[in-house]
Amino acid sequence: MEHEKARVQFQPYGRTVRVPAGTTVREAASLAGIPLEYPCGGQGTCGKCRVKVSDSNGKPGPAEAAALSEADLRAGFRLACQSRLSNNTIIEIPESALPLGKNQILAGRSAAATAAPDPPIRAAFVEMAQPTMTDDRSDAERLLDAVQAESIATALLFELPSVLRDSGFRGTAVVASGCVVDFVGGSSETACLAAAFDIGTTTLVGELLDVRTGAVRAFASRMNPQITYGDDVLSRISHAARGPEALREIHSTVLAAINEMLAEMAAQAEIETSSIYEVAVSGNTTMEHLFAGLNPSALGMVPFVPVSRRGLTLEPSRVGIAINPRGCVYVLPVIGGFVGGDTVAGIAVTGLEEADRPCLLIDIGTNGELALVHHGKLTATSCAAGPAFEGARISCGMRAAAGAVEGIVLKDDVELTTIGGDAPVGLCGSGLIDLAAELLRTGMLLSQGLFATPDTLPETLSPALRSRLIDHDGALAFVFAHADETQSGHPLVLTQRDVRELQLATGAIRSGIALLLKRAGLAANQLHRVYVAGGFGNYVRLSNAQRIGLLPGDLGEDQFRFAGNTSLEGARASALSLGARARAEAISRATRHFDLSSDPEFQTEFAMAMFFPEATDEDAS
Amino acid sequence: MEHEKARVQFQPYGRTVRVPAGTTVREAASLAGIPLEYPCGGQGTCGKCRVKVSDSNGKPGPAEAAALSEADLRAGFRLACQSRLSNNTIIEIPESALPLGKNQILAGRSAAATAAPDPPIRAAFVEMAQPTMTDDRSDAERLLDAVQAESIATALLFELPSVLRDSGFRGTAVVASGCVVDFVGGSSETACLAAAFDIGTTTLVGELLDVRTGAVRAFASRMNPQITYGDDVLSRISHAARGPEALREIHSTVLAAINEMLAEMAAQAEIETSSIYEVAVSGNTTMEHLFAGLNPSALGMVPFVPVSRRGLTLEPSRVGIAINPRGCVYVLPVIGGFVGGDTVAGIAVTGLEEADRPCLLIDIGTNGELALVHHGKLTATSCAAGPAFEGARISCGMRAAAGAVEGIVLKDDVELTTIGGDAPVGLCGSGLIDLAAELLRTGMLLSQGLFATPDTLPETLSPALRSRLIDHDGALAFVFAHADETQSGHPLVLTQRDVRELQLATGAIRSGIALLLKRAGLAANQLHRVYVAGGFGNYVRLSNAQRIGLLPGDLGEDQFRFAGNTSLEGARASALSLGARARAEAISRATRHFDLSSDPEFQTEFAMAMFFPEATDEDAS
Repeated sequence: MEHEKARVQFQPYGRTVRVPAGTTVREAASLAGIPLEYPCGGQGTCGKCRVKVSDSNGKPGPAEAAALSEADLRAGFRLACQSRLSNNTIIEIPESALPLGKNQILAGRSAAATAAPDPPIRAAFVEMAQPTMTDDRSDAERLLDAVQAESIATALLFELPSVLRDSGFRGTAVVASGCVVDFVGGSSETACLAAAFDIGTTTLVGELLDVRTGAVRAFASRMNPQITYGDDVLSRISHAARGPEALREIHSTVLAAINEMLAEMAAQAEIETSSIYEVAVSGNTTMEHLFAGLNPSALGMVPFVPVSRRGLTLEPSRVGIAINPRGCVYVLPVIGGFVGGDTVAGIAVTGLEEADRPCLLIDIGTNGELALVHHGKLTATSCAAGPAFEGARISCGMRAAAGAVEGIVLKDDVELTTIGGDAPVGLCGSGLIDLAAELLRTGMLLSQGLFATPDTLPETLSPALRSRLIDHDGALAFVFAHADETQSGHPLVLTQRDVRELQLATGAIRSGIALLLKRAGLAANQLHRVYVAGGFGNYVRLSNAQRIGLLPGDLGEDQFRFAGNTSLEGARASALSLGARARAEAISRATRHFDLSSDPEFQTEFAMAMFFPEATDEDAS
Repeated sequence: MEHEKARVQFQPYGRTVRVPAGTTVREAASLAGIPLEYPCGGQGTCGKCRVKVSDSNGKPGPAEAAALSEADLRAGFRLACQSRLSNNTIIEIPESALPLGKNQILAGRSAAATAAPDPPIRAAFVEMAQPTMTDDRSDAERLLDAVQAESIATALLFELPSVLRDSGFRGTAVVASGCVVDFVGGSSETACLAAAFDIGTTTLVGELLDVRTGAVRAFASRMNPQITYGDDVLSRISHAARGPEALREIHSTVLAAINEMLAEMAAQAEIETSSIYEVAVSGNTTMEHLFAGLNPSALGMVPFVPVSRRGLTLEPSRVGIAINPRGCVYVLPVIGGFVGGDTVAGIAVTGLEEADRPCLLIDIGTNGELALVHHGKLTATSCAAGPAFEGARISCGMRAAAGAVEGIVLKDDVELTTIGGDAPVGLCGSGLIDLAAELLRTGMLLSQGLFATPDTLPETLSPALRSRLIDHDGALAFVFAHADETQSGHPLVLTQRDVRELQLATGAIRSGIALLLKRAGLAANQLHRVYVAGGFGNYVRLSNAQRIGLLPGDLGEDQFRFAGNTSLEGARASALSLGARARAEAISRATRHFDLSSDPEFQTEFAMAMFFPEATDEDAS
């Protein structure tokens, strides 16, 4: 049964993933990078994650029957957090749940749903007249006239006489930005594909795209194997900085994974990787450098300068990527040493640069990246959040995988949800946020980040919760899963040190936001909209993220948009459209980068942001 | 003494050659590709080759004393055909003897005698501010801002962080067409050179150029070693067409020679070949293909199409040329399969395309190339003259080298001149033309190309000449050097078959000119000017070339211009100026190519042109 996979397509994103039977729609959506919101923590009570499921995948469960109307159920709606997949399915995200609105998503998909007006590459089948005494144009002119292009790539020029004659002057020309890069005998216009990649510090996500239609033909994701060199960008930079051999090594590591993903997607779509002529890549500045093979040493030293701010256009052989050697690799422009192509993509996909009211983009990852627009001016900064939200540096932390505690509610006792519904293994980012927020709400954790001592605990606290506060290595700690509930048979504990790590992570992002707003002369409540990018939004409870101070607290739920994997969206747009590349370059140029650590107020602001927000009236409820 | 070389610089060409002591100025000029005219055949009688010699190179000889005025002698004038070089010398060609006029020559030298407005490459020393927290521009931006360029070559980008930091952000950037291609620590603005090559079927000529000033720093020439694959283009094409290995072989052969010349010129100028960043190459279509390594197969079959009509811009590694690997190789555009970059260069250098009256360009080589301008319209064609004028396929033929008979006058007996003054070894092109013209003039050769039988010889003919008409293998032949006069001790003979070869060569060019004029609705006497390009003009006697019908007979001496090696001039202009490249491309596009062999009138015209012009009244004189 493990090997039985269901093919799930999400619309209007046009994205497809294969998942084992029994996977929830929520997990499949997360895998596909589709942003959905689960305000109730995926308990099946709020009904916010309703999606339309094309095919019968078993009957609605009791939670679904309760949360959805009769009409919704008849129309095929299910709850993403509850419904499990057994067959090949098409899942439609209702317009109300689209983070950016359907038009923006389709626009983000490069306006190429039919045929992009400006694809970086196109294939054209041409039949040319054979040369005669009265038509003795050169081979190059003959081809250029037929294809209506401006130039021919040198490599092709060197085989043109034989390629044209062997094919009887009939074949498919591949044209990139006005330059004929390849000619294949016969008609194979379908053989012109592109790929888009989001290269994260932790995760790699890729898509195979049909350039003619903009359709997603395949999808792949995996861990970034560079993790063996350290889980944060600085340790990878310092490895690469040891010398050319070390750089080659860490570069090859990620390329091997990318090439595997290309092969996997090609197999899914039943094409050859040699039909892929364009690749667009987005990631943080370090990941982009290491992907391209650029020396990132200067990114590891003050003042953290990248080799190039502009986007790179590279030959596949230069990068070592296994697509058609005549193809081209585009790496998105960056904004600064720690504000990368992923932020450029985020700005482009959310339309931040065109917003006429103040808007903020928050990309929470190992490195938090922030962008603000106000009066048409873009500023961006980064903050070293650390990998706490990815489960690292937390004693019971883990990534968002099966068995991870991703939702916690404290009532009479702890109520927790794990990914896949298995017995708990550890705590992932959203679980950590939930737990901290709930501990704050119940008064077990103080705003300074210290656990309340037993004698100062609120009287209303249940004995069960009260008993979970224990002594751990000479400090207080909270047992969120008892030994008999866990997969390992050991208790799962949030320690005082773990809370410190969370404070550092949260404080970094919070102070970044505060300073970015301050520089623009804005208060948080003047923000019209906050876009939260990254896979983060898939599980996190907005109110809890606000409770711990990670997201601005003085904004209403409606002002937040979980924008999903905007880095991948941006890479896709660049893979499909030259205009999207130009837009990315313009955003990179227009965005003022500022360095938090050089801001004299940073230390003060950071120290203040380390405190969790004070208790409110709501907390007691 | 053989090893003692004099360094000779020709002005205003700025060209320098090294020659063995004892070489005549005429020979040095020929080696340097400087066109001078010798209407008297270099006998020191007409005084047309007077040049100003900077330094004492011995006293004027008796011929010079007779031919030059007292004032000229005092001013340092000598006869190029008589004066021998012993010291380093600057030779000034008087303005009256410049084929194109001084301004045109200086313009042909790229208008760059001071600093070209649009050099393809420039070097700029820059000192950059080191990155700080308040100036955290990327390495690429920092360099681009300092150099005022638009982009950075990928190869440089990959080493930029270390190159900039190792040099302390101080160094010399090399910029090609707005793209920074190299950065060398420290100040070395002088290290930016270019080279220009004329790649002939028979001869290779090269120049090393200072891009900043346009000055010629060194000069080299040698035989095209591809000659081992055949002395004409078709035999080289058929060798290359055997397969990729054969193509590589014939390509490497010429590249080895080019690389030797580059090393030789670098040594002359005391620079490294790595300081050479630009190379421009001109030649006939086949030679350009073989230089670039392009497959010339289609040039060997009807309808003789080149791979590309446009100029090529190639990486040095692609060509295998030993200049700076970050540099660039430009190969001039062609007009058709047998009308190459050399003709494009000829049109550009003579300004043919701007002429407001009908003008003709004749480039006499193994392959004759012709271009005509009339009412602003350019047409060009080629004719397979064969290598007769280069001494091949002529029983006693040889190239224009020491011992070659290059001038012949028939008076009471044969009076001949050899290159270097040695005893005769064979007959070169100008000697062949002289001999045929003189035989026609004296009535020993009839216009059909047959020797007059002894009984029909003119009565006025001297007995000495009469006795030279002998029976040779059953046909008549003319002994132009008796056995006791030659180096080998064997007589030198012009056979009936040799005359046929000359008729074929002359007829091909003559019929080409006739058809080109006919298509344009012009008669030869309507031509305002005829430019004769190629080394050919250095020795040939105009009146004799007209007498045998090689050059149009109904034009006055003043209407001819011997333009010298216009192919090299054009390559030099393209090495020094992007505008010159644009002009070459425009000429290539604008020139209508027509194929003689597909012209229905060609056979008739060619058959007629095989006849030498009829005797005139002047012949008897």
